[in-house]
Amino acid sequence: MHADQVLRKRPAIPALATALCAVLLAQPVQAAEPVNPPRPAAADAVNASKPAEWRPLDPEHTLYMELPGGRVVIELAPAFAPAHAANIRALVREGYFDGLAVLRSHDNYVAQWGDPDEKNPRPLKTAKARLAGEFTMPMSNDKHFTPLPDRDGYAAQVGHSNGFPSARDPKTGRAWLAHCYGMVGVGRDVDSDSANGSSLYAVTGHAPRHLDRNITVVGRVVSGMPLLSSLPRGTGPLGFYEQPGQQVPIKAVRLAADVPEAERSKLEVMRTDSASFKAVAEAQRNRGGPWTKVPAGYIELCNVTIPVREQGK
Amino acid sequence: MHADQVLRKRPAIPALATALCAVLLAQPVQAAEPVNPPRPAAADAVNASKPAEWRPLDPEHTLYMELPGGRVVIELAPAFAPAHAANIRALVREGYFDGLAVLRSHDNYVAQWGDPDEKNPRPLKTAKARLAGEFTMPMSNDKHFTPLPDRDGYAAQVGHSNGFPSARDPKTGRAWLAHCYGMVGVGRDVDSDSANGSSLYAVTGHAPRHLDRNITVVGRVVSGMPLLSSLPRGTGPLGFYEQPGQQVPIKAVRLAADVPEAERSKLEVMRTDSASFKAVAEAQRNRGGPWTKVPAGYIELCNVTIPVREQGK
Repeated sequence: MHADQVLRKRPAIPALATALCAVLLAQPVQAAEPVNPPRPAAADAVNASKPAEWRPLDPEHTLYMELPGGRVVIELAPAFAPAHAANIRALVREGYFDGLAVLRSHDNYVAQWGDPDEKNPRPLKTAKARLAGEFTMPMSNDKHFTPLPDRDGYAAQVGHSNGFPSARDPKTGRAWLAHCYGMVGVGRDVDSDSANGSSLYAVTGHAPRHLDRNITVVGRVVSGMPLLSSLPRGTGPLGFYEQPGQQVPIKAVRLAADVPEAERSKLEVMRTDSASFKAVAEAQRNRGGPWTKVPAGYIELCNVTIPVREQGK
Repeated sequence: MHADQVLRKRPAIPALATALCAVLLAQPVQAAEPVNPPRPAAADAVNASKPAEWRPLDPEHTLYMELPGGRVVIELAPAFAPAHAANIRALVREGYFDGLAVLRSHDNYVAQWGDPDEKNPRPLKTAKARLAGEFTMPMSNDKHFTPLPDRDGYAAQVGHSNGFPSARDPKTGRAWLAHCYGMVGVGRDVDSDSANGSSLYAVTGHAPRHLDRNITVVGRVVSGMPLLSSLPRGTGPLGFYEQPGQQVPIKAVRLAADVPEAERSKLEVMRTDSASFKAVAEAQRNRGGPWTKVPAGYIELCNVTIPVREQGK
């Protein structure tokens, strides 16, 4: 994803753009406007990464949500929400979500799924009905935090914890996952302990960071976001679908570990404590090349790409 | 939009929720968890606003883009991009966009529209073919800036200018519009003066603020965002549609002033220098009521709602 391709007037053909850049960069630049030096792009950092800088998804903590349009892959974050991750795994193994639906598509906010039947809700089996909120956890439990140098308005410190955008406050000693695009949280009622993981949402708009520390964040969509983000918006209050026919049926949600190996999505995530990840963030913080006139010199937490790819690609 | 309704497990019925809140707030609270005091919500601030705190859209600077799903209403920002706003008005009055298409839907980024025919591009008539970039302007040209007290990573100061999120740098004396959700920019090639307004995009994802000061921002979608944000994502590079049949035809783009009064969208925007707008931002910065456990104490520029409503509602 080169910054100099992103908002051209016409579709850029990557091979052509690369050739064009090579020509442009090889020539003396005579333009009067400021010249932004060439710098590695995020894609260059990904291409230069070593295999050890990637980790596969753990099949015991990876969900496949099968929608009519395809598969949404969710990586759970048991380090931050152990009780919710365990309960969701129990729900999934009981087939709880199979046949339920995406109930809500709220523009610039969330897509939310769960049980459409309020009058006769699907009973739980072994899963617990109420869990204490896991809104934050002790910083000492976070063994993989890599800080970003960039300041943040919502938290004293932000960075990444083993593939998830996260934040922390040394004064309180607490750490939490940040509500960036694609993050998955657990719907709750007023009480902090009113959730159990049977109602989930993914962020589909600008990061609603005010939800941080107010709700349990349980994971991240690592593949298939467009299946949720491009759903028609619900026209009811808060983006709920008003007619059952508008709801999007969930064929099944399965743990990757329970899916035959041949049917699994073979994805790997760049380690967020790696040198290549640091290079990705820097490439986005200070974009190089002739398209960018003024590098931002800063990157906001939720704008940092966490690279995901097919294994061995 | 009450924070205590947004991520309940089930659809909240506003009337019921209001009644429930009244009951909850009237009772002594015995919960062990921290109690967030009641505070006015953004909706309360809107309801309490005075008619003089709203302004109608200027029909000479309002575009109606008619898509198969309905109308997208765009407010132009001639104060920030006078030459581009004028050229776009000329293009629109020449019928330039009629029959063109949305060409690109890039997940968590932009929807972009313009001429799908690269080989035989639609000729311009009176509109200029190239314009100098209007990426920033002198701060002194911005007569309506109202600062937010909240700090920002991308700019020394942020706030709102007559309905648009904006930023400024007192050191350089420059001001610019910020790439928040729904903002409309002008696609360009590598050269700063390569654009003319015939290729436009709207931000449909997390704010790509690194584009600030690098491209001309010309307005904001004030109504109809879901018609752009929920489009199927393009599967080609950068989210371009790979097949012409996937492109979304633009029936017409018209200036509101050229549309019969009876067919106009009667919208008004809350004045961003009003007391009520300040109250909206504060209600989102420190959300009250029992659902929120920890008010953020901060609001990021692109999370501030700029209220729009039908006139007289």
